[in-house]
Amino acid sequence: METTKPEALRRMKSIAGHVKGIERMLEEDAYCIDVIKQIQAVQAALNKVSTLLLDGHLHSCVTTAVQSRNVAERERVLQEIADVFETATKV
Amino acid sequence: METTKPEALRRMKSIAGHVKGIERMLEEDAYCIDVIKQIQAVQAALNKVSTLLLDGHLHSCVTTAVQSRNVAERERVLQEIADVFETATKV
Amino acid sequence: METTKPEALRRMKSIAGHVKGIERMLEEDAYCIDVIKQIQAVQAALNKVSTLLLDGHLHSCVTTAVQSRNVAERERVLQEIADVFETATKV
Amino acid sequence: METTKPEALRRMKSIAGHVKGIERMLEEDAYCIDVIKQIQAVQAALNKVSTLLLDGHLHSCVTTAVQSRNVAERERVLQEIADVFETATKV
Repeated sequence: METTKPEALRRMKSIAGHVKGIERMLEEDAYCIDVIKQIQAVQAALNKVSTLLLDGHLHSCVTTAVQSRNVAERERVLQEIADVFETATKV
Repeated sequence: METTKPEALRRMKSIAGHVKGIERMLEEDAYCIDVIKQIQAVQAALNKVSTLLLDGHLHSCVTTAVQSRNVAERERVLQEIADVFETATKV
Repeated sequence: METTKPEALRRMKSIAGHVKGIERMLEEDAYCIDVIKQIQAVQAALNKVSTLLLDGHLHSCVTTAVQSRNVAERERVLQEIADVFETATKV
Repeated sequence: METTKPEALRRMKSIAGHVKGIERMLEEDAYCIDVIKQIQAVQAALNKVSTLLLDGHLHSCVTTAVQSRNVAERERVLQEIADVFETATKV
C-alpha cells in the first residue's frame, strides 16, 4: 500500500463527517448559501485527497509501469493519468 | 423550505453512501486511479446539489430580497451569489 | 453599460496578450509543464473576469428584472444565473 | 517536439481569435451572460489544450525521466505532474 493511502483514508473519514453535517443542515432548513459554502469546502477537501492519491500513484504504479518493458501496460497507466487530469478540469 | 431542499437532502444521503464506499475502497487497498475516479464522481454529484440549492435560493430568498426596499439586504444577497460563483470557479 | 464592463475589457486585453505569449512558447518548443502553468494562469484570470461580469449583471439586469412585474423575464434571468453557475462548476 | 505541440498551437491560435471576439462583445456592450458563456467556452477549449500537452509530456519527457537512473530528475517530473493536477482542480 502506498504511504498516501492511510492519510487519504483519514481524510475521507473526516469528509464523511462533513457530509453528514451538511445533511443535518438541510434537515434543519439552514440558509442555502451556508450549505453551498460547506459543499464547496467538501469539494476542496476531496481535491486534496485526489492529489494525494495521484502523488502516491505516480511514485509507485506509474514508476513501476514506465520502467517495465511492457509497452501496453506503460501506455495504459499514462493514459489513465491523462484521463483523470482531463476529468479534473471538468469537476 | 424551498422545494429544492428535500431533493438536495436525498442526494446528499446518496453522496454520503458514495463517500463510505470510497473509504472501503481505500481500506481494501483499491487501485488509486479507481479511487480518484470515484472521488471525481462524488464531486460531480456535489456540483448538482449546489446548482439545485442555488436555483431554489434564487427563486426564494434572492427574489424576496431584491424586491424589498432594504438596500443593504439586497446588496448582501447579491454579494453572496457573486461569492459562491467565484468559489465555484476554483473548486 | 455596467461599470464592470470597462474593467472586464481591460482584463480581456491583458488575457489576449497572455494567450499570444503562450502561442510563442509553443512555437519555441517550450517545456510542456511551463505552457500548462501559463494556460492555468489564463484560466484563473478568466475566472476573475466572469465573476466581475456576473457581479455587474446581478446589480443591473438581474435587479431590474426581479423587481419588474414580468414573471417570464424574471424567471429567464434567474435561470441564466443558475446555468452559468452550473457551467462554472464544470470548466 | 512532441507531436502534440503543433496541434496545441493550432488550438491556441483559435482560442486567441475567440478571446478577441469576447473583447469585441465587451466593446459593443453585449449581454453579460452571453459574454460569460463565451468565457466558459474558452476555458473548456483551454482545458483541452492542457490535456493534450500533458498527454504528449507523459509520453516523452516523463517516460524518459522515469526510465533514467537520475532519481532527482525523476522526482522532479513526477512532482510537476502532481502540481499541475492540483492546480487543475482549482481553476
